[in-house]
Amino acid sequence: MSKARLEAFSDGVIAIIITIMVLELRPPAHADLHALRELWPDLCAYTLSFAILGIYWNNHHVLVGAMHRVSAGVLWANLHLLFWLSLFPFATAWMGRNPDEPIPVAVYGCVGFLSAVAYTILQMTIIAADGHGSKVGQAVGSDFKGRMSLAAYAVAIVLSFANHWFSYAFYVFVALVWFIPDRRIARSTGAD
Amino acid sequence: MSKARLEAFSDGVIAIIITIMVLELRPPAHADLHALRELWPDLCAYTLSFAILGIYWNNHHVLVGAMHRVSAGVLWANLHLLFWLSLFPFATAWMGRNPDEPIPVAVYGCVGFLSAVAYTILQMTIIAADGHGSKVGQAVGSDFKGRMSLAAYAVAIVLSFANHWFSYAFYVFVALVWFIPDRRIARSTGAD
Amino acid sequence: MSKARLEAFSDGVIAIIITIMVLELRPPAHADLHALRELWPDLCAYTLSFAILGIYWNNHHVLVGAMHRVSAGVLWANLHLLFWLSLFPFATAWMGRNPDEPIPVAVYGCVGFLSAVAYTILQMTIIAADGHGSKVGQAVGSDFKGRMSLAAYAVAIVLSFANHWFSYAFYVFVALVWFIPDRRIARSTGAD
Amino acid sequence: MSKARLEAFSDGVIAIIITIMVLELRPPAHADLHALRELWPDLCAYTLSFAILGIYWNNHHVLVGAMHRVSAGVLWANLHLLFWLSLFPFATAWMGRNPDEPIPVAVYGCVGFLSAVAYTILQMTIIAADGHGSKVGQAVGSDFKGRMSLAAYAVAIVLSFANHWFSYAFYVFVALVWFIPDRRIARSTGAD
Repeated sequence: MSKARLEAFSDGVIAIIITIMVLELRPPAHADLHALRELWPDLCAYTLSFAILGIYWNNHHVLVGAMHRVSAGVLWANLHLLFWLSLFPFATAWMGRNPDEPIPVAVYGCVGFLSAVAYTILQMTIIAADGHGSKVGQAVGSDFKGRMSLAAYAVAIVLSFANHWFSYAFYVFVALVWFIPDRRIARSTGAD
Repeated sequence: MSKARLEAFSDGVIAIIITIMVLELRPPAHADLHALRELWPDLCAYTLSFAILGIYWNNHHVLVGAMHRVSAGVLWANLHLLFWLSLFPFATAWMGRNPDEPIPVAVYGCVGFLSAVAYTILQMTIIAADGHGSKVGQAVGSDFKGRMSLAAYAVAIVLSFANHWFSYAFYVFVALVWFIPDRRIARSTGAD
Repeated sequence: MSKARLEAFSDGVIAIIITIMVLELRPPAHADLHALRELWPDLCAYTLSFAILGIYWNNHHVLVGAMHRVSAGVLWANLHLLFWLSLFPFATAWMGRNPDEPIPVAVYGCVGFLSAVAYTILQMTIIAADGHGSKVGQAVGSDFKGRMSLAAYAVAIVLSFANHWFSYAFYVFVALVWFIPDRRIARSTGAD
Repeated sequence: MSKARLEAFSDGVIAIIITIMVLELRPPAHADLHALRELWPDLCAYTLSFAILGIYWNNHHVLVGAMHRVSAGVLWANLHLLFWLSLFPFATAWMGRNPDEPIPVAVYGCVGFLSAVAYTILQMTIIAADGHGSKVGQAVGSDFKGRMSLAAYAVAIVLSFANHWFSYAFYVFVALVWFIPDRRIARSTGAD
């Protein structure tokens, strides 16, 4: 199992996830501005998820690009990450149709949280295979951004039961934090 | 982040967008010629969008093929383009089901317009990274075709409220203009 | 535009077409054997289309693999072929739900016929670019199999109005004829 | 037809199958915890199928990676495997919506059984082309795991008419058995 194949398969799955999400953006039954306005939450949810998946694709590449060894553990940790990412279309559609309801907003946060956990596990598995002194190991370091994202998602899930606007703010905040690919790895690998 | 990966991911996303559009071409409930005739606008909208996305795929390749440096800006400008392209299945399905209504026809134009804007931004970002004296910079030049397309889409959006047939004419016109890949870049890179 | 990219994009589109067809195979509302039996025509139509698209993928590879020059004409002829292939999910779903109706059976034949025409055009465009003395030119020769397929589809379309079982027989017959990749090209290129 | 292309196409199809399955995980009509709880069987079925397809992807890579010669037989045996794998989204959705009904649970087992048969045929076709003394031939040996999986699926199909929980147990058991890629081939090829 070469690194190139792992990347190609992950790219394929992420490209499909990011694209089929639009199938949940159903054309409205009517053809007026009102119908379009009612689609607004769906479109916002789609845009947010598109950004999040784009960010994962980007960071995944930097991470895997710096990796040395494809162990069986890395393989399953990667599939585990793809599993949680694959639930984004479902969570996006449900939240988009019920933008004011706590449960769908919280479920979206759970998918985000568990994707972030899966990403952290993948990172740890790679470091375990490559060693702490490796490129990935040194670059990730204490992984402040990763732990902060986990905390932000956890807070957002809880807050969705108080006021879902707080949750949305946190979801957008995490996306903005990760918008720029991990410069630590990028710098040390000469990418970017 | 190598150029090859950026291309492979973009190819994947465009291939998926171009293909899932057909899922919106629902088999009619009845099995006679009348049912097929009612599908005519959907089929025309599908054909137009298939052509537009095929054109984007082709020109995207010529553009990225001539590019030297993958900066972080190029990466996000590319994802931004893919985002607008990904809305084509939605806009196509809505227009196909409401071919005589101004709003869906105008929304289709908006998706086309914003895709063209995103393509222009991607071009500018590449030139900013590669320099104006670079292959892409010299080949694009004043970008007459690009600016004309933007103007045509803008006019088509406005005209959709007067007579949607004008809008259709403009959409087809822009597609025809871009049918042949950008010979300026193609010539300077030795591609056909 | 390199040959490798043309192949990768075509592979991607065909892989997506062949796979999304299964989305039209809707799980029945009930959970008994009767419901499954009613799905029988859909499953047969799906199997036939899966085989036809697998055959196109295979032959497309042999053809493009023997090609020398990617001209702009080849590019558009290829997209044209992908367009007709992309209508298979629609035609399959409609025929699968109305297996005894002449119009859906004839429409399926039309999609098959026009795909075969598009393949022939692609072949001719490649020969025009490479020359009649080229590998592809010599291997295709008088293209007996291609012309026979076109004739078989034409007959099948007409016969669908008399007895659709004749049409089915012809569709299966054409698939069987093409089951083995074009040995003429394969032999001359050392493939297979 | 090179090995790389066979792999790329198979990867593409498996990536699409694994991802479009999530489209059958429809967002519930209501937005409360009860609606989410009702989705539980669908989510379990999705998770199981995701794991099974991930396992097939992984083992397929190890198998094809050890293969020497791409014969026409290997090509069709591979498409045959992809055909049965492509029915997983259908079987998953039907079983997910009717988790207590024998027929959908048995149908899921049939798709699993026939996929395992197709994998065995692919293995035999590769050994036939490469020879029994080849890397694949020696590594597969008596194929204990493969024959046990076939037996487990067969038992699970029969037991679904007695108690579907037995069937589920067998499905999970087979997945666990294959979780670790085939070490026999992996070891002999130096892969992990």
